[in-house]
Formats: sequence, C-alpha cells, structure tokens
Amino acid sequence: MKNLKLLLILLCAHTTFLVNDVCAQKSTSDDGELFKVAMAGFTFVNFNLEETLKMMKEVDVHYLCIKDFHLPLNSNDQQIADFHAKLASYDVTGYAVGPIYMKTKEEVDRGFDYAKRVGVKLIVGVPNHDLLPYVDQKVKEYDFKYAIHLHGPDIELYPNAEDIYSHVKDLDSRIGMCLDIGHDARDGRDPIADLKKYKDRVFDIHMKNTTAATKQGKTCEISRGIIDIPKFVKMLRKVKYSGACSLEYERNMKTPLAGIAESIGYFRGVIDATK
Amino acid sequence: MKNLKLLLILLCAHTTFLVNDVCAQKSTSDDGELFKVAMAGFTFVNFNLEETLKMMKEVDVHYLCIKDFHLPLNSNDQQIADFHAKLASYDVTGYAVGPIYMKTKEEVDRGFDYAKRVGVKLIVGVPNHDLLPYVDQKVKEYDFKYAIHLHGPDIELYPNAEDIYSHVKDLDSRIGMCLDIGHDARDGRDPIADLKKYKDRVFDIHMKNTTAATKQGKTCEISRGIIDIPKFVKMLRKVKYSGACSLEYERNMKTPLAGIAESIGYFRGVIDATK
Repeated sequence: MKNLKLLLILLCAHTTFLVNDVCAQKSTSDDGELFKVAMAGFTFVNFNLEETLKMMKEVDVHYLCIKDFHLPLNSNDQQIADFHAKLASYDVTGYAVGPIYMKTKEEVDRGFDYAKRVGVKLIVGVPNHDLLPYVDQKVKEYDFKYAIHLHGPDIELYPNAEDIYSHVKDLDSRIGMCLDIGHDARDGRDPIADLKKYKDRVFDIHMKNTTAATKQGKTCEISRGIIDIPKFVKMLRKVKYSGACSLEYERNMKTPLAGIAESIGYFRGVIDATK
Repeated sequence: MKNLKLLLILLCAHTTFLVNDVCAQKSTSDDGELFKVAMAGFTFVNFNLEETLKMMKEVDVHYLCIKDFHLPLNSNDQQIADFHAKLASYDVTGYAVGPIYMKTKEEVDRGFDYAKRVGVKLIVGVPNHDLLPYVDQKVKEYDFKYAIHLHGPDIELYPNAEDIYSHVKDLDSRIGMCLDIGHDARDGRDPIADLKKYKDRVFDIHMKNTTAATKQGKTCEISRGIIDIPKFVKMLRKVKYSGACSLEYERNMKTPLAGIAESIGYFRGVIDATK
C-alpha cells in the first residue's frame, strides 16, 4: 500500500500531462481505524449515480450506503452487476442498502431479497412495529444485520436510540440500529452516550450535526453544530465500532458539494488530531 | 454574541421563508484562539470579488489577505471605500495586502502607500535583496509589519524560512516572513520547527499542504499532504501566534470550492479536536 502511494507520487511528479485529479493525494485519515468514512446515499437524492460518484471522488470517500433511487428495488441481476461495475470504476464499495421503509410482510421480503441480490449483508430499514417478529425471523434466515433507522422528533416511528433498543433488546442480536446522531440529538438524547450504551446494537451511523438539541434544530455541516464530534470520534474508538460512519448531508441539497467537503474534511481533521 | 446566535437559531427555526444560507450555523472553532482562520487572496485568482466573497461565505471565513487583482494598486479612495463596504457586506475583513513583488524603490514606495490608503498595517511582499535596507527604512517610517513571502525551490528569491531569517535578522523587528508551510516543506524544511524557531518574525502564514517534501511535491488539500497539521496547530498555540492562517489553495484553481471547503473543514476539525 505504501509502495503504491509512493509510486503514485512519483508518477504525479514526473508525468506532466496527467490531469490534476489523477495527482490528488489520497487521504490517510481512515487508515488504521476500525470504522469507515462513508456516505449515506440520501445525501445525493438530487443527483444521478455518475454525479454522485464524481462528488465522492472529489472528497475521496469510498463507501456508499445504496439508496433505491440509484439502484431500484426491482433491478435485475444485470442492472445490479452494472451498478457495482460503475461503483468499482470510482473505487467505491456499496456496503449496505437503505434506508428502506417496510410497512408490510411483502416489503420485508422484497427488502431482504433485494439486499441478497445486491450482495450486501446489512439492511438499513424502518419496519412497522408489528413486523419486528417477522424481521427477527428473516435475519436468522438470511444471516443479515438489520439496522433500524431513527428519525428524531419528526416521525413517530423510532424517534431515538433508546426507543429502538427497547424494541429490539429481546430480538435476535443481528437487529439493531442506524444511529443517526443528528436526529438522536434533536430528540433530546446524547448520541455519544447512546453509542456507548447501545454499542452492541449499532450497525450503521449517520454522521450529521444540528444547530440545536430540539425539534427546531436544523441540520448543518458537521463542523457547525452542537454535537461534539471530537468526543464522538473518541467514543467510536473506545467502543471499537467497526461499521461505517456515513455522512448524511441534508443542508443545501441541490448544491451540496461544499458542505459535503467541509464535513468530510472536518471529520478527517478530528480523526487525525485524535489518533 | 451567544444571545445573537440564539436569536438566529430561533429565527431560523420559526421563519420558514428564510433561505437555507441564512440558517447556516457559524463555526465556533476559531473562538478563543489567538490566530485567525483566513484566506489568501491568490486562492481566488480566477474569480472576481463577488464570487470570492460568496465562496468565503460558504465556508464561513471572515479574513482575507487582499490581492491586487481584487483591489488594484492604483485604486483611488472611493474605490477602496467601495471595496471595504463590499467586504463588510459579507462580514469579511481585509487584514493585509499582498503578496506584492517589489523590484525597485518606486515599487516599494507604491506598496507602502497602497497599504496605507487601504488601511492595513501588514504588507506581504517579495522585495529584491538590495531593497531590504530601504524596506527597513519604510517600516520605521510607516510603523507597518512587512512579511516576506517564501516560495520554495521554484523561485531563487527567498526559498524558505531560514533564508528569510538570514536576510532580516539584523533589520528592524517589524520585517519578518509570511511562512508558506507548503513551500517551506517543499524546500526540505520542517515548517513546524521553523514556526517555533522564527516565531518572532512570523507575521503571516499560508496554510497549504504538499504531496512530498521535495520540489516535485504537488500542492493539495491540507487534509491530504505530508505536513502534520495537528502538530502544526499545537505549535501555533505554543508560540502564541496571533496572526492569520490564510488558506492558499492552489489545486483545481478553476473549480476550487470543494478543495477549499475540505481544507477549511479539516483545519477546523483539527482546531476543535486539539483545544
């Protein structure tokens, strides 16, 4: 790996006709960490896959949670193969699918079948409460992890980490949560304490920040909110979190690149400075 | 200040017709630091003042080192007043002028006169060696600080911090350097050690990073280079540096916003995580 990097640097230095982008140094912040810097697909709700991957390349991020608007649930095997090939051409891995809302048994079936065909072993989902026993059955059948997405005070279903835990604590240990730290904070919770408390059930994380720890809190660059990101990164290491930390950037969603870049830069600055 | 922030948050929460930008939370990373997060004007060589200030607003930066392509050296008093008014409308302060190359006494005179009319007390300049006694005389006359810009191995004049120090150490203490940490590193120096060594003569800093500590090193996002930024930030505090740390971003200069945002985000992440 180091030799490859050295080779790239030498190539960049001596090959004047290469475009700037090829010479972009890779960030090394994530090296040696158990967790991954990643992107939540919803960040790119206004962009097609090519535009999405170009932005991910700009900010040097290599893991994506796949949303259905980039890869529909009814995609056939060829479409899925093409999708993965496109991701690979940008050095990006789709590590999970979702969030997928599941209101019926059929939607649970369809989500698990989709994830299997996509080839991931983690679903981020929002199942109605009465479907939880069925999800419990499915995770055993498929040996998948299922991360329930929490959505703060805006939606009644799964407002915070404690609420999810209360619903899953007696179910299969493969059912847990996608800890959305912004929404958890907006629901009056401390997402750092919740990561510590529910670590064994946290399978995915949505990185974001909020201007206030209330329903009125607005989503913002992770550098500009009330959640103490350095403290959060230290907790990631303390609990040995080994999943993805996916930036879900929801401010200025039609021109998000600057906010994404500032957020990813900030996250990596914190990672480097607390190593 | 805190009340103002609270008021803004409340306004944002309750006033649905406000545009997103107004609701942008301010970064608080710089609060309580002696140094300032700033921008070097050269970053925006391909953009007019309005475009420049819009980008600075996006990344929440409020100090600018003024380049002559935004405010020509022959600007009259009205043009200078208009310039400051425009900056003020974006909550930006022009804290210095330059870099200005000075090859003759007349160019030195013109630079000092310009700075005086602009109303700043710091010039970033590149004077020919034989003009240094004259610059010495001028800083006494104007009571200005004069920061000589270093440019690494590409230009013979002032390649690194040690070279500048050797030229200024017997001159007035108001003559010092703009420590360009990327170029200093590209000239084989350790910019962190140089900041410590020459702290009394460092009046301005160009923040950047480089892919290698050689002439072949390419400029890059400050998050992706070989200079240890967390260590550098700690040294800023250790030597009680109270000037500007101006991002001079020179990769992808025609579409720089993402790189600027990533760099500023990274810088602030490091600042927050090492507080």
